[in-house]
Amino acid sequence: MSFADMSVSPSNPSISSSLSGSSLLVAWQLKDKTVLIVGGGEVASGRIEAVLSADAKVIILAPAKGLHPRTKRFIELYPDRVTYYDRRFSGPAELYKMDMVLTALDDPNSSRQIVELCREQRIPVNAADIPDLCDFYFGAQIRDGPLQIMISTNGSGPRIAALLKSKLSTALGGYEGEAIRRVGDLRERLKERAPGIGGAVSRRRMKWMSQLCNEWDMEDLTQLDDAKIARLLDEGWEQNRVPSLRDLGGKPKLKQGEENPPLASREFNSGGSTVLPATLGFIAGGVSVALLFMYHRR
Amino acid sequence: MSFADMSVSPSNPSISSSLSGSSLLVAWQLKDKTVLIVGGGEVASGRIEAVLSADAKVIILAPAKGLHPRTKRFIELYPDRVTYYDRRFSGPAELYKMDMVLTALDDPNSSRQIVELCREQRIPVNAADIPDLCDFYFGAQIRDGPLQIMISTNGSGPRIAALLKSKLSTALGGYEGEAIRRVGDLRERLKERAPGIGGAVSRRRMKWMSQLCNEWDMEDLTQLDDAKIARLLDEGWEQNRVPSLRDLGGKPKLKQGEENPPLASREFNSGGSTVLPATLGFIAGGVSVALLFMYHRR
Repeated sequence: MSFADMSVSPSNPSISSSLSGSSLLVAWQLKDKTVLIVGGGEVASGRIEAVLSADAKVIILAPAKGLHPRTKRFIELYPDRVTYYDRRFSGPAELYKMDMVLTALDDPNSSRQIVELCREQRIPVNAADIPDLCDFYFGAQIRDGPLQIMISTNGSGPRIAALLKSKLSTALGGYEGEAIRRVGDLRERLKERAPGIGGAVSRRRMKWMSQLCNEWDMEDLTQLDDAKIARLLDEGWEQNRVPSLRDLGGKPKLKQGEENPPLASREFNSGGSTVLPATLGFIAGGVSVALLFMYHRR
Repeated sequence: MSFADMSVSPSNPSISSSLSGSSLLVAWQLKDKTVLIVGGGEVASGRIEAVLSADAKVIILAPAKGLHPRTKRFIELYPDRVTYYDRRFSGPAELYKMDMVLTALDDPNSSRQIVELCREQRIPVNAADIPDLCDFYFGAQIRDGPLQIMISTNGSGPRIAALLKSKLSTALGGYEGEAIRRVGDLRERLKERAPGIGGAVSRRRMKWMSQLCNEWDMEDLTQLDDAKIARLLDEGWEQNRVPSLRDLGGKPKLKQGEENPPLASREFNSGGSTVLPATLGFIAGGVSVALLFMYHRR
């Protein structure tokens, strides 16, 4: 199945009258935001990694004796973005200028107090292991550059989420993050050439980008370097068409009609493994019979 | 590869000193919350579906002439949860008691004004198509009951996200949502039997649940009905062990050692395709040489 063949309807036309039971999955933006993390153990260290990845500044409140080695490493490696205080949460003043609060404590009562203070000040808060108190949950995650995938079981099964993470990881080809990065570069260059938010130009940009992503194989998008992006805009966007990678002097990774790499390589292997045993068998059979004849001649 | 074989480390032991560039993916909780949606077009209709699925109450502000058919259907189907006003956003008073605001307007200036008002009141806000203004982004989503998967490209490629959604959907077996639901039921029953938040009992529960999910094939978890859950708790939890599905009188969907059907059948095929050509080659080689000798004898 080629990517272009897959028709994904942007909105399901059927409407259910019993929508419920799920969460609103969102990609929260933390650039230039400050996140307070109360606790320093293993769970806290995972939270620290997640918010640092999202470009946040982090304040950690936790007694030094309970720090996980990973928490210590983050404090050492990111002195400009992590501020550490060797003490427990002391009261409402700790929340001053915080954009988000994450607690990872063994003491549910402390978590509950902190959550209540956050609610009063409308600060988004998550208390590890106490779903009832959370504005939001975390899930298992796959990350490949700009690509992030979250698997949420709505609190029913963190272990299953981790298993599904493995399963979905193996379904990816490893080039998706790079393809997304290149498409992002192209989008930026296109916006410079044809600027504007909303309206006709925005719609035309969106349509042209979609057409490109539909017509090119995803792996081929990784070949979009600066030179090819320039040609794509000159020969494609300006003329209201989508050139192929070959048109731009590139070489598609796979031949036409072989757009699904794992399948193609599997077929090649099994093709190879048919020819070789047949040849070896032919030689072995020939030699055996020849020896038989020579033995009888003597 | 069986699910039990896949070791997924809960936290990557290596620590990067260049964490950045991603979002914090979270599952936002909207039960008993109110979401204001400004706009009623196609994008707005997608937002309405997402927040209704998350059990929110919805207030829609949009002139009737611009309503998308799907928006109209949601207003009709959910009179108890959707309140519709046939007018534009009128000012700060609209934000009273709102827990989240989503704008989906063709007019970026209006969006900008609304976002500024939300920021003053610390209300999480998303403005469609204007990433710079958003507290959070949406991504492509897969949903199967309690299982939700979000694919985020951090704004670089919505079309690629949709293509990846298709790819990942085909990697799922279709039983994962049901497995998660049953494991959720088991977890609830276990918490009734061994209540408590945090501490030793919480850790023992988590360990036992993880062991079950590791040892059972994911598809077999869908067979966990009330009777089997009761036996699992009596014969498993109480005795600090994890019985197999067979121990509970169930029949595993797949035989031992064949837990991943595609891989197993692929290996079987390539095994077959090696033996058969080799045999045929041996016979052909033998016959050829025999004919050669017989020809020379004449």
